Amino acid sequence: MVTAPPEPRKLTRKGQATRDRILQTAVDLIAARGVAGTSTEDVRKAAGISGSQLYHYFDSKQALIRAVIARQADAVPIPGRPMMGALDSLEALRAWADAGIERQETIGFGGECTLGTLAGELSAGDEASREQIGQGFLRWQELLHTGLQAMQDRGELSPDADLDELALALLTALQGGTLLTQTLRNTKALRAAMNAALSYIASYSTPNPDRPPTT
Amino acid sequence: MVTAPPEPRKLTRKGQATRDRILQTAVDLIAARGVAGTSTEDVRKAAGISGSQLYHYFDSKQALIRAVIARQADAVPIPGRPMMGALDSLEALRAWADAGIERQETIGFGGECTLGTLAGELSAGDEASREQIGQGFLRWQELLHTGLQAMQDRGELSPDADLDELALALLTALQGGTLLTQTLRNTKALRAAMNAALSYIASYSTPNPDRPPTT
Repeated sequence: MVTAPPEPRKLTRKGQATRDRILQTAVDLIAARGVAGTSTEDVRKAAGISGSQLYHYFDSKQALIRAVIARQADAVPIPGRPMMGALDSLEALRAWADAGIERQETIGFGGECTLGTLAGELSAGDEASREQIGQGFLRWQELLHTGLQAMQDRGELSPDADLDELALALLTALQGGTLLTQTLRNTKALRAAMNAALSYIASYSTPNPDRPPTT
Repeated sequence: MVTAPPEPRKLTRKGQATRDRILQTAVDLIAARGVAGTSTEDVRKAAGISGSQLYHYFDSKQALIRAVIARQADAVPIPGRPMMGALDSLEALRAWADAGIERQETIGFGGECTLGTLAGELSAGDEASREQIGQGFLRWQELLHTGLQAMQDRGELSPDADLDELALALLTALQGGTLLTQTLRNTKALRAAMNAALSYIASYSTPNPDRPPTT
């Protein structure tokens, strides 16, 4: 009988490094082959560890997948992570979108293990994974919402703008665009979707915010 | 040695019906459990046929998955299929989007086997499936493009509008919105993404097309 997977706790520095290595190996294999195509034995071999070592950190494939989702949910939506704190202007959002498109071009259009690809593979048949991935999406939506809220507070977005909707439109453009980019092996869909989402946000921008220009 | 999967050919009406039943069973199971969670044995049992019958139509899981992708690629992007021929106005596109959102609400947010969910599961590790799904996406893009082209030809969309991009933005909104709808179990993301795509298209509409109003 296997009980609930153990939480990672009081790991030594070396233990933490081993756990990180296993997780990174799992992420890389899933990126290339999908969750279904990746066995714990594949991960064990690729990470160069023993079966008992692997079991010490992750006592089942399910426990490993949970940890992969948690790791990818913590990753900020796209590259340019330092920028996330400043996604509070149309220019910053545009730069963020461009960085995401450029990144897809750099990595050769896909072969990534993202929250979106995990959702595509796991949402149908695995309720616990679906919920965990959903929580990750909601956290990203909140991050995007924070920047939009700052814009609205400064009077740059109309008070009528539904910021939850705008944040979701951005997140959905990113996820759908990445999915089609991976499938079609070019960034046209990501570019089109981000243009549409940014244009939608810009349609709520106020030409004359009632605060003085910052110049 | 197994050679290339046999093409469906010269089936009797009864044979075609059996093949259709197997395919529909596979689609239903994949909708509930994903591709990885669905074995040919599951399909055989659920369809109530013998192993040799199944093998007669699909001699491998791969052959069955190919047929599922082909079937879903032929399905028009969303419900309201009769409407597809008339997706050539902002009103028709809005109605189409609303029908898609309503459909997700009717079926309980997900549990569908769509080209998008197949892409999420298969694009990473299965090159032939990725290509086949990509072809399906391109066909949908073309369908959407046809309607937009009619609008541009009538002068309702600016000559500057990049119709390939607008069609891709719509398709990506649908795919990403459906993915997030399945994961978050509500249609907010699909609604937001479709609003953004439709608003983007509307931003290219010409207020005064040079043909007389049809009153």
